[in-house]
Amino acid sequence: MTTPEFRVEHDLLGDRHVPAEAYWGVQTLRAVENFPITGQPLGGHSHLVRGLAAVKLAAARANHDLGLLDGPRAEAIVAACQELLDGRLHDQFRVDVIQGGAGTSSNMNANEVIANRALELLGHARGEYSRLHPNDHVNLSQSTNDVYPTAVKIATVLGVQELLEALGVLEQAFAEKAAEFRVVVKMGRTQLQDAVPMTLGQEFGTYAVMIREDRQRLAEASLLIHEINLGATAIGTGLNAPEGYAEAACRHLAAVTGLPLVTAVDLVEATQDVGAFVHLSGVLKRVAVKLSKICNDLRLLSSGPRAGLGEINLPAVQSGSSIMPGKINPVIPEMVSQVAYEVIGNDVTITMAAEGGQLQLNAFEPIIVHSLHKSVSHLRAACDTLTERCVRGITANEERLRLGVEHSIGLVTALNPHLGYATATAIAQEALATGRGVADLVRDRGLLTTEELARILRPERLANLTK
Amino acid sequence: MTTPEFRVEHDLLGDRHVPAEAYWGVQTLRAVENFPITGQPLGGHSHLVRGLAAVKLAAARANHDLGLLDGPRAEAIVAACQELLDGRLHDQFRVDVIQGGAGTSSNMNANEVIANRALELLGHARGEYSRLHPNDHVNLSQSTNDVYPTAVKIATVLGVQELLEALGVLEQAFAEKAAEFRVVVKMGRTQLQDAVPMTLGQEFGTYAVMIREDRQRLAEASLLIHEINLGATAIGTGLNAPEGYAEAACRHLAAVTGLPLVTAVDLVEATQDVGAFVHLSGVLKRVAVKLSKICNDLRLLSSGPRAGLGEINLPAVQSGSSIMPGKINPVIPEMVSQVAYEVIGNDVTITMAAEGGQLQLNAFEPIIVHSLHKSVSHLRAACDTLTERCVRGITANEERLRLGVEHSIGLVTALNPHLGYATATAIAQEALATGRGVADLVRDRGLLTTEELARILRPERLANLTK
Amino acid sequence: MTTPEFRVEHDLLGDRHVPAEAYWGVQTLRAVENFPITGQPLGGHSHLVRGLAAVKLAAARANHDLGLLDGPRAEAIVAACQELLDGRLHDQFRVDVIQGGAGTSSNMNANEVIANRALELLGHARGEYSRLHPNDHVNLSQSTNDVYPTAVKIATVLGVQELLEALGVLEQAFAEKAAEFRVVVKMGRTQLQDAVPMTLGQEFGTYAVMIREDRQRLAEASLLIHEINLGATAIGTGLNAPEGYAEAACRHLAAVTGLPLVTAVDLVEATQDVGAFVHLSGVLKRVAVKLSKICNDLRLLSSGPRAGLGEINLPAVQSGSSIMPGKINPVIPEMVSQVAYEVIGNDVTITMAAEGGQLQLNAFEPIIVHSLHKSVSHLRAACDTLTERCVRGITANEERLRLGVEHSIGLVTALNPHLGYATATAIAQEALATGRGVADLVRDRGLLTTEELARILRPERLANLTK
Amino acid sequence: MTTPEFRVEHDLLGDRHVPAEAYWGVQTLRAVENFPITGQPLGGHSHLVRGLAAVKLAAARANHDLGLLDGPRAEAIVAACQELLDGRLHDQFRVDVIQGGAGTSSNMNANEVIANRALELLGHARGEYSRLHPNDHVNLSQSTNDVYPTAVKIATVLGVQELLEALGVLEQAFAEKAAEFRVVVKMGRTQLQDAVPMTLGQEFGTYAVMIREDRQRLAEASLLIHEINLGATAIGTGLNAPEGYAEAACRHLAAVTGLPLVTAVDLVEATQDVGAFVHLSGVLKRVAVKLSKICNDLRLLSSGPRAGLGEINLPAVQSGSSIMPGKINPVIPEMVSQVAYEVIGNDVTITMAAEGGQLQLNAFEPIIVHSLHKSVSHLRAACDTLTERCVRGITANEERLRLGVEHSIGLVTALNPHLGYATATAIAQEALATGRGVADLVRDRGLLTTEELARILRPERLANLTK
Repeated sequence: MTTPEFRVEHDLLGDRHVPAEAYWGVQTLRAVENFPITGQPLGGHSHLVRGLAAVKLAAARANHDLGLLDGPRAEAIVAACQELLDGRLHDQFRVDVIQGGAGTSSNMNANEVIANRALELLGHARGEYSRLHPNDHVNLSQSTNDVYPTAVKIATVLGVQELLEALGVLEQAFAEKAAEFRVVVKMGRTQLQDAVPMTLGQEFGTYAVMIREDRQRLAEASLLIHEINLGATAIGTGLNAPEGYAEAACRHLAAVTGLPLVTAVDLVEATQDVGAFVHLSGVLKRVAVKLSKICNDLRLLSSGPRAGLGEINLPAVQSGSSIMPGKINPVIPEMVSQVAYEVIGNDVTITMAAEGGQLQLNAFEPIIVHSLHKSVSHLRAACDTLTERCVRGITANEERLRLGVEHSIGLVTALNPHLGYATATAIAQEALATGRGVADLVRDRGLLTTEELARILRPERLANLTK
Repeated sequence: MTTPEFRVEHDLLGDRHVPAEAYWGVQTLRAVENFPITGQPLGGHSHLVRGLAAVKLAAARANHDLGLLDGPRAEAIVAACQELLDGRLHDQFRVDVIQGGAGTSSNMNANEVIANRALELLGHARGEYSRLHPNDHVNLSQSTNDVYPTAVKIATVLGVQELLEALGVLEQAFAEKAAEFRVVVKMGRTQLQDAVPMTLGQEFGTYAVMIREDRQRLAEASLLIHEINLGATAIGTGLNAPEGYAEAACRHLAAVTGLPLVTAVDLVEATQDVGAFVHLSGVLKRVAVKLSKICNDLRLLSSGPRAGLGEINLPAVQSGSSIMPGKINPVIPEMVSQVAYEVIGNDVTITMAAEGGQLQLNAFEPIIVHSLHKSVSHLRAACDTLTERCVRGITANEERLRLGVEHSIGLVTALNPHLGYATATAIAQEALATGRGVADLVRDRGLLTTEELARILRPERLANLTK
Repeated sequence: MTTPEFRVEHDLLGDRHVPAEAYWGVQTLRAVENFPITGQPLGGHSHLVRGLAAVKLAAARANHDLGLLDGPRAEAIVAACQELLDGRLHDQFRVDVIQGGAGTSSNMNANEVIANRALELLGHARGEYSRLHPNDHVNLSQSTNDVYPTAVKIATVLGVQELLEALGVLEQAFAEKAAEFRVVVKMGRTQLQDAVPMTLGQEFGTYAVMIREDRQRLAEASLLIHEINLGATAIGTGLNAPEGYAEAACRHLAAVTGLPLVTAVDLVEATQDVGAFVHLSGVLKRVAVKLSKICNDLRLLSSGPRAGLGEINLPAVQSGSSIMPGKINPVIPEMVSQVAYEVIGNDVTITMAAEGGQLQLNAFEPIIVHSLHKSVSHLRAACDTLTERCVRGITANEERLRLGVEHSIGLVTALNPHLGYATATAIAQEALATGRGVADLVRDRGLLTTEELARILRPERLANLTK
Repeated sequence: MTTPEFRVEHDLLGDRHVPAEAYWGVQTLRAVENFPITGQPLGGHSHLVRGLAAVKLAAARANHDLGLLDGPRAEAIVAACQELLDGRLHDQFRVDVIQGGAGTSSNMNANEVIANRALELLGHARGEYSRLHPNDHVNLSQSTNDVYPTAVKIATVLGVQELLEALGVLEQAFAEKAAEFRVVVKMGRTQLQDAVPMTLGQEFGTYAVMIREDRQRLAEASLLIHEINLGATAIGTGLNAPEGYAEAACRHLAAVTGLPLVTAVDLVEATQDVGAFVHLSGVLKRVAVKLSKICNDLRLLSSGPRAGLGEINLPAVQSGSSIMPGKINPVIPEMVSQVAYEVIGNDVTITMAAEGGQLQLNAFEPIIVHSLHKSVSHLRAACDTLTERCVRGITANEERLRLGVEHSIGLVTALNPHLGYATATAIAQEALATGRGVADLVRDRGLLTTEELARILRPERLANLTK
């Protein structure tokens, strides 16, 4: 019985009390009870709420265009969706981010919130579904199986756009450091062993290039998720969606989101396939791998301060130890690598969920969505932090770097064309055994003159700095 | 300058304002700023807060025993820790769950909260660290590198205990169903093809056995994380921890937690090694694999209602579709498999974080802890839900199961010893081609009599029900 | 001492006997001894041997163009490389596929084999390196660190081309089945529960579309590995490679391979980065996920023959059981899924190896190469087998499929727009409870007429066959 | 028609020519044609062939004991199996290691080889199956579904035993180095930053402890795979296996293998469950993680020779570079890490294959077996090589290590109890800024006397060497 505190709602399992002030209804209630897993509600993923709202808004307009939905109802639904797009009522999205049902509960939650807010806007009480029904009106011409993937794609595109921006700023920060360190000569290393000279600018320039390439790949992968299946309804055959609906809905959705969305050619395929998410996750994994590699390098190059490589200094951002006073640790790069490990784990989760999909629908899309969301948003946060709290403040220990080159045995490589591999090997072995310098040994043996050596071993030449 | 709203705290990077009412201090503040990654604060992981509190409590008692800490300070620290153990002030643990620094910020956060609460209990103002200092007193004889792993182990043991209980209840639920379905004969399947008869009781009994074995393995793995490194301090050499401290602290910690904790024999090894976590995660992955396999089976066996196997019915817990009225979906098993995929992904994350550890410490322990926590707590929630909202309500379609056996070609296997593999193969092929029954064909060919067939093909015999 | 059976070779570790008839030398010998891991020699990866040969051939021509290598030596090296390209002497590539050293041993093995074969062609004895030296001549202007990645890219492109062809044939086979089954109506399923009608042609058409999309993504990813770093030498600074070498070598390499290769803009980055391999592996994983999903569907749809879905029949390719006569199993799809699992595991291996790379070089490229090679070649073999031994022979059980639609409760979805979600739900529940048909119940309740029902529930309309 | 070169064999798909000299038959032929994936035949996995032979031998004896198999046939089968156990005829196991059919083709291959060799021993021609039949006699009372898992377990136990031995030798080698380096003081590092002093002996001792723990865990996991399901036949109900067979077969199998095998209590569960393999793989992954961590440390500690940490020297085992003369690389640790990455990837493969198992059997066991075999055998080879070609030859650069301690700022930690965290932090900051020594600064400030400092900072005390 309805009371001031509760209203009664009905579904195929019977009646339930819903708090009077709730915009969500019985379907949401059951889902909340069924999935008490992470404690993280859908509403915390604001891009997803916006994606759902945008889809419902576009659907209402398309239904109205096609004469299936009258003006007042359509306007009320659109207004309710607009509020969600404006960031309101997100706390009404209560279902757990990990949920069974292929997203049905997410869609139901959206249908109910929008219906009740629309009812309110129309001057009706919440729960008066005979006036405006979550399924018959808000979900009209739709199925979870086209609404949810479409909303997820919008949410993902929005998240990836933020990540692309963060990567762009990070790339720029590395490029600036590369310029700053352009003439700082140092030893390059392969397999952690001293190799041949290079500049610190080349080293940091590499990181900028890596991130630029990753941005390009990520942008390409993001394009794949602009293809939607709205209009597919249950399994892609478009059952219960009228002629012209898919086109109209896509047009309205593109307008409201500002995204160049297109309807998939084969909707049956598009409804069951999560390939674009697997692909995107694979590219995010690539980004994670590169970021972690870069951060591993930063930690290594800044190791010390005295018993490490000590080539660069990362800015101090907090005390490093509760017991070791004055210790400064590379906490930002450490954080980034941990995010990378999480992203790589998420990729396995997404892969398994994708592989487990059967027949006309992938029932495991919610974990794909949750995992992608974590990957995208944590990577973005990690990039922002890496840029602002680490890269921008890096300084070089130029003297130490220069000495490293001067004392290096790796210089012998440059003499290879002049001495041959076998003789050069013997010189290197002697240098290692005796602790003497390569140039000295070559000069002493009369293999090259001081002038020849000076020319050949000029650091700028070795590092190919003239380029 | 200190104001009614703020106090000033100092660290190696300088002065910062901290809200006057905060129990956390400058170290926590910096860490919060440095790690804005997930939005999930440490305080949400209550077992971990309790673990930290228990360690600090035990350390205070040990320090007092050894004469390093005076009575009033020790008592105040113990009282503050006890409040945390009682579930209070967890909202003061503000650092993000993903953090650089090998857990230093988690330890610092604990040190500060405990110090400030202890100061308060002693009648001092928060921030009056000259009276009782987060590092000099709360962290006395300790390092993050022994405190944090020890706290994490306690937290993990507590979580695993809950999971073990949930698995026990689930096992029991399957065992009850096995008893209920003991004489329900059905076709067994291998490679999704009809094989030979069995009972539904055997099928569900299998699930109970699987879970029992997993519980045993999980309990064994949990034992490994009762070995702690408290007293190791920075790298395991015990620097700054006095003689007798490790033993006293472990004894107090065992007392306060009620857990049979032991100190590792080699503290240098114990401080850098995260093998027990990798091991535990591997076993959790095993549990996840089994749960998902069982849930895949449940979804398959309940497929239908008409165009599927339709052998069992899962209880309806919510509407299954926003477009298909009356559709009931296996949402609980779907949720469980998604949790399993997450756990498997977490295992990769943990593996990478473990492999990335270098020299005397694994800097990536926070992501290991966060991932383990998700795996353990989500599995527990998934088990509870699976038991209560799915397994207990499963019913069998006995008639359909019986017909499956009667019409089966797989019965021919039982005739193998009587006919030989080659003849039996020919019978099976004819049955498949003609749609006739195996017994009919054998009788018609005069290979066995009706009586012989009846005896050989008795379902109870085939399913080995007499056992 | 050299004997008829052995010659003596020397390196920085001293003298060693090498079998007189061996084209490989002391460096290969040491590597063979150092890496006795898998028992699989490099020579088994023929695309890689060809890739190495192509690079050495192109380098020799470039060195000759630039006046660094005289005509006779250049011609002899080119001739030796050509023999490798023709498939000869691959058995001389003896180093294990898993090897330390970032590919140095692979490059050294190539240098030695080519040098000794070239010596032979020049009329000298094997091992007479004073005439033509593995490092000074065959490896002239090169380093493992540009040769090996370049050779690997060529090898990978060749492998991917074969895979793309195999996927194309598989796509075509599914498209042909889609055409064959165009009007075979059946129930679609979501979450393994009966959903709404579709055609078997739509189902198989989906598989063709999936594979087409995968082919496109794979072709795009393959383009990324046409960018090479030849001319980078040790760390990308081009030390010891003369002006103009990189361009000339790339031009010759493109000519000999027929591939549109380009030199990377930033050679320092290109030398340490394995992003293109991680990317490609991610796309291969996507392909694997889809193939496994398709094969899971095929196994499910062909389950039975009597107690399963029994919608389609896979061709019998072998006896299915050593104990169950006449049993036919879906062994080809099972094999494909196993290959997919392997590819997904390989992706994790590749990811870890990529993340572990440090500073100017990734030391772990050999395991990346080995894993990619397995993924590409096993996927190709799996596709070929799936096409020829499974897909082409699939037949439909049309009668069973038709009955599934007629008895389905899912038909009620089509009545949704006419009855409303709530009423339709009640009808569905009654159908499930009573076993009656949806149309009957609707007619009995007087909700729609027989004619209306016939029109609405026409299978072709439901499956959207008119499109 | 049978010819001198071929004999004709028949199965449910019709007649096929089999080479006259082949011990394998038509079932093997079809499987070879169906699975042309890796090119690696079963026969290369000798432990698996032995496992199959042992099972067939035990089954023959059990069948004879129970009166199902006459003496001459039983003896002939036993004799043929014994030959396989002795390492003969392994080249007759031709089916690819990746195969569909849940191992049926492996079992069939064994049945045929044993039958034909037994026929020969009995004086009959190969292929005269009316005398002794692969299925009716060699496979009597058996199914692939109990034979194959049992054989696999035996094979795995044998492989793990070898790995345990190799780990034991490696542990010992590290322990010897720990003893050798017992008093070599050095700086410990956390998060790659200088921490507090320790000894190189402690560092190497850690590796010995890690490996010892891993050996214990691996031995425990290996115990789990001593539980077999022989007697289960097709799905665990024991259909067609007579009373007493399971016990007799297990007893004979234990006798012939010398392993303490036991029959699982619930054979239905044991037949479908691959949990013990997932568990074992998880433990192998743990071993891999540790080995890779250790090898990463070895590479880091030996970085240089001049611009790296340069704390230890790994023995040179081959030239490191084709372009950089005299360069020595840590190729053995690099190889070990690559094997570790492979093992970790294999674990994902195994996990997915396990999760994908359905109902009464896991169809994907062959890829589990293949992956486990690679993990176990490659780890063993890697350990052997690591021990003999790396660890045994490691030397320390004692002077450099000692200087690292003397110049270290980390010494300040030891002053913590005397100065307090805040003062110590200020000292550390000054040391870092000025390049001066910690002791000097403390003395100059008059905080401690020279004598006090000498006592507190004694390296042996800091490293806790007295223990």
